[in-house]
Amino acid sequence: MMNFNFENLYLINPTNIDDECYIRAVHADKILDNAKIFSSFNDSIKNIDYLVATSSIESKTDKKHLRNPIILNDFSENINTINGKIGLVFGREDYGLYNEEIALCDIMLKIPASENYKTLNLSHSVGIVLYSIFNKSFTKKTRRNIGKIEKEKLFEHLNLLLDEINYPEHKKEKTKIMIKRLLGRSIPSKWEYHTLMGVLRKILKKLKNI
Amino acid sequence: MMNFNFENLYLINPTNIDDECYIRAVHADKILDNAKIFSSFNDSIKNIDYLVATSSIESKTDKKHLRNPIILNDFSENINTINGKIGLVFGREDYGLYNEEIALCDIMLKIPASENYKTLNLSHSVGIVLYSIFNKSFTKKTRRNIGKIEKEKLFEHLNLLLDEINYPEHKKEKTKIMIKRLLGRSIPSKWEYHTLMGVLRKILKKLKNI
Repeated sequence: MMNFNFENLYLINPTNIDDECYIRAVHADKILDNAKIFSSFNDSIKNIDYLVATSSIESKTDKKHLRNPIILNDFSENINTINGKIGLVFGREDYGLYNEEIALCDIMLKIPASENYKTLNLSHSVGIVLYSIFNKSFTKKTRRNIGKIEKEKLFEHLNLLLDEINYPEHKKEKTKIMIKRLLGRSIPSKWEYHTLMGVLRKILKKLKNI
Repeated sequence: MMNFNFENLYLINPTNIDDECYIRAVHADKILDNAKIFSSFNDSIKNIDYLVATSSIESKTDKKHLRNPIILNDFSENINTINGKIGLVFGREDYGLYNEEIALCDIMLKIPASENYKTLNLSHSVGIVLYSIFNKSFTKKTRRNIGKIEKEKLFEHLNLLLDEINYPEHKKEKTKIMIKRLLGRSIPSKWEYHTLMGVLRKILKKLKNI
């Protein structure tokens, strides 16, 4: 993290931060000192605007939206268009992230790797993702994009819309995640957000006036 | 190495290849089995055509050629233009490579890193260099994205929706373009297209049933 100018480490139910941790951190002891400890994933993401799950296990078909990944290099290329606090989420060394955790994230990120051995260890995954972001971080942020509050409002209205049209319950969750993925990839600007919300409000109003 | 399709590991005066090494290699035991052991750097490079030293310590002026580095990304970008066997040379965990060793190499490679903490550990350095090389030769597994016909159908339905909710005429063109941009950035897959069309059809049906 310190090699690539990252400072904020959030740990969820970690092992004891003991001497061995400090020995391994070498000169990055400050990052360990300042690490925030959480007891649940949900607690840790409360003030994060844009969540990025990392996994090497992707959907076999495009049909399953949950694990439809974007490629690390493409993510790094566009990271400056994301507004607010970005949370990079890395899973357990052995099991990675669970589906429920990935579902809470805006996108799922994949490090391209060999078909013969896709799974990187945790430490290398983190190193490579942070390197890739650091390496691209020269381009300037241009658009003003939406943050967490706008994003939630948008999803809330889209969900209301699904309710209003009696969208089949068994498809709802999947479709909600798909919408999240679509918007996660397109990253709306503030202006686009206002226009989208205008359209959604008009649709909802009309649907309710029946 | 196995994560990024590298096979040939040369070790110079290594520690004993014991059980711990195999435990850490996880599924990459073959690479350890086939590693070639040398007693000197000179012996190890005899059949290598192009040698790439890696170091985080670069010359302070361009005048000193020995440690004038090329940046990892530029190297990976052009690696296909190099002829013959390429040797990536990584130094000791503590001291890195000596000047005499770097002098024997064709180029010196640098991983861009923080001014505050330039030196990566050996394991991460190797991981990042191999990722970068792999990534450049990696052709994205293309999702089956929607083509022109589906895109037009999608826009047609979105436009019908705008008509149906009496969207102000003077805003219509702008909003249509915004939708195009949003979808242009998110690039829906065929499956996402079908789900989206399902939602749109349901909305339109409900709106028309008034």
